Amino acid sequence: MEYETPLFFHVMAYAAEADRDVVDMVSGNPDWEPPEALRQGLREYADFDADRFQYPPSEGIRELRAEIAARRGVDVERVVVTNGAGEANYLAMARALERDAGSEVILTDPVYSYYPGKATMLGGTPRYVSAGTDGQLDPADVRALASDETAAIVVNTPNNPTGAVYPESTVRELVAIAEAHDAILVADEVYDHYDLSGTFSSALSVDSDHRIVTNAFSKSLAITGFRVGYGIFPPHLVEDAKSRHMLVNVAGSRPAQYAVLCALRETEPSYYEANRELLRERVDSFTDALDRAGAAYTRPDGAFYVLARFDGYPGTLENVERLIDEAGVAGMPGAAFGETCEPWLRFALVTPRAEEAADRLAAYFA
Amino acid sequence: MEYETPLFFHVMAYAAEADRDVVDMVSGNPDWEPPEALRQGLREYADFDADRFQYPPSEGIRELRAEIAARRGVDVERVVVTNGAGEANYLAMARALERDAGSEVILTDPVYSYYPGKATMLGGTPRYVSAGTDGQLDPADVRALASDETAAIVVNTPNNPTGAVYPESTVRELVAIAEAHDAILVADEVYDHYDLSGTFSSALSVDSDHRIVTNAFSKSLAITGFRVGYGIFPPHLVEDAKSRHMLVNVAGSRPAQYAVLCALRETEPSYYEANRELLRERVDSFTDALDRAGAAYTRPDGAFYVLARFDGYPGTLENVERLIDEAGVAGMPGAAFGETCEPWLRFALVTPRAEEAADRLAAYFA
Repeated sequence: MEYETPLFFHVMAYAAEADRDVVDMVSGNPDWEPPEALRQGLREYADFDADRFQYPPSEGIRELRAEIAARRGVDVERVVVTNGAGEANYLAMARALERDAGSEVILTDPVYSYYPGKATMLGGTPRYVSAGTDGQLDPADVRALASDETAAIVVNTPNNPTGAVYPESTVRELVAIAEAHDAILVADEVYDHYDLSGTFSSALSVDSDHRIVTNAFSKSLAITGFRVGYGIFPPHLVEDAKSRHMLVNVAGSRPAQYAVLCALRETEPSYYEANRELLRERVDSFTDALDRAGAAYTRPDGAFYVLARFDGYPGTLENVERLIDEAGVAGMPGAAFGETCEPWLRFALVTPRAEEAADRLAAYFA
Repeated sequence: MEYETPLFFHVMAYAAEADRDVVDMVSGNPDWEPPEALRQGLREYADFDADRFQYPPSEGIRELRAEIAARRGVDVERVVVTNGAGEANYLAMARALERDAGSEVILTDPVYSYYPGKATMLGGTPRYVSAGTDGQLDPADVRALASDETAAIVVNTPNNPTGAVYPESTVRELVAIAEAHDAILVADEVYDHYDLSGTFSSALSVDSDHRIVTNAFSKSLAITGFRVGYGIFPPHLVEDAKSRHMLVNVAGSRPAQYAVLCALRETEPSYYEANRELLRERVDSFTDALDRAGAAYTRPDGAFYVLARFDGYPGTLENVERLIDEAGVAGMPGAAFGETCEPWLRFALVTPRAEEAADRLAAYFA
């Protein structure tokens, strides 16, 4: 196989087929309710005239792009609505790599598993800068690796899998490094609504033609299956991004876009705050149990994940499967996120049974 | 710009901004009703538990893939549900081109506008075989152009823009040519439900590891905006197709997939037949008016389109805009479909005002 298929699907299938009850902490699917206005949007859509079942504008329905542009403080012409953050990152890396300005893509280690595959598929060569399991990136390390061969620097903040939230100074430095080497900073901010620390800083806060910001409503509205995301491109890259989007997908799915628009318009800040609060509580109870298990772990400042390391139990696929069979808890092998994470396991806190899982881990490793 | 953006959007925008009433015959959006079961599927989905708002399987929800596999008589493992036929064609061409088995993509002239852009984006070199404006392909011409440099032969039957439906002998020959040169026949059959002639033959009728069949529900269920399509891949290519799909889009939009599943299960054959009959009537009345206008034209055996040529009025973009302003009818410039079509205009018969448009054309050119 020429692309590396993420391990997620393998592990989820293994957990689903296990002979016992398993708490699934594999994938980053929110387990909380989407906003009621989203459901209502789908109901309204079902009764629309037939013409609204036809192609939306390729770059997304106008009202949704306008809503995104207003919230992010950018010109609407720079917004391309995509099939989730997945497509937005693909379009962003394609733009960075197709400028005849280098073929290297700087990624972090730990890394979100899809980035290396996307970079390679697009003809890029991944280069890794170590962030450690706390996920904080030292801009000096990025600067040392950057060169005129650098096409893109791809980061994710709040970070999957480490939970790191980059301070404003790091974001500013990353933009400066991209500018110094005619590279593009691709900042995937899909977890921006799950900044648990209050320290999140969007790359949009630094004005530059050398950065693309990607995002989606998959996590913030608890609808990973709807596939509505977006990219915000510099003016000189947006037309080519739209063209590739059109040539690959023609357009995104219109009922999903309409439902998201309704949800954005009508959902109160308290919806997002309640979900953050739920996550904070889960972080506390899960890490308390990890303490009891004598594990090392990361305490996330944002996103959904905890990295944990158990003595003598490296996070191999074999050990992940053993943990499913023997402890009834499914996590992800650390190796899926790069070399640094090999001894670690990643647990996604998006299950109402996170505390139960933690108790099982504490008992198993005690 | 490095990709050629299809002209559709430019022409549609021009028509929308015109100072007068314009009959829009630009794009292939059905103007008839989607099945009621599709609307009902969206309503049901709106009330599902939150877990069904999360990621579907990357290759599509299982029941939908099973329904497609049963209808097409193929193993379900070969079916990848895509974001419309657009993505299915993109995945198919990528597979053909990434086998180290040539970099040329044989296309027809006239050609569906997106194919050359997709081929080029994927590093392929388009080569054209002339099909004439009647759209019928002489397999001997394809054979003459094919070589070991041929990665793919991409065809569309029933054909946009010519309305040609390839006979079974042509389909069989195309598969044989692909096999002889280790190429992949990509057969886009998105208009299969609009075979007005009863002569359509799917490439699936010829068993081979050298063909990929693409399709979508955009036209058959009148939902171009939902973006649900599929590719049927040979066993040795399907895993890489799934991987690219995952790396680009992660998955398709789940509410749209569920609504399509409901529509497939509950829609009677009479729905499809009524839409074909409507098209047949429009073909008759539109071509009658073209006779009165003294135009040359193609009478489609399938799909939605009529190519027409008016004396002294070649199908340039300039003339398309003039026709919008002076006659109140918007068509597509022939040049969008390749050299052969340059003198021609394409009119999509997917408006209840097709007859009115024809009368306007007859009056304008009389």
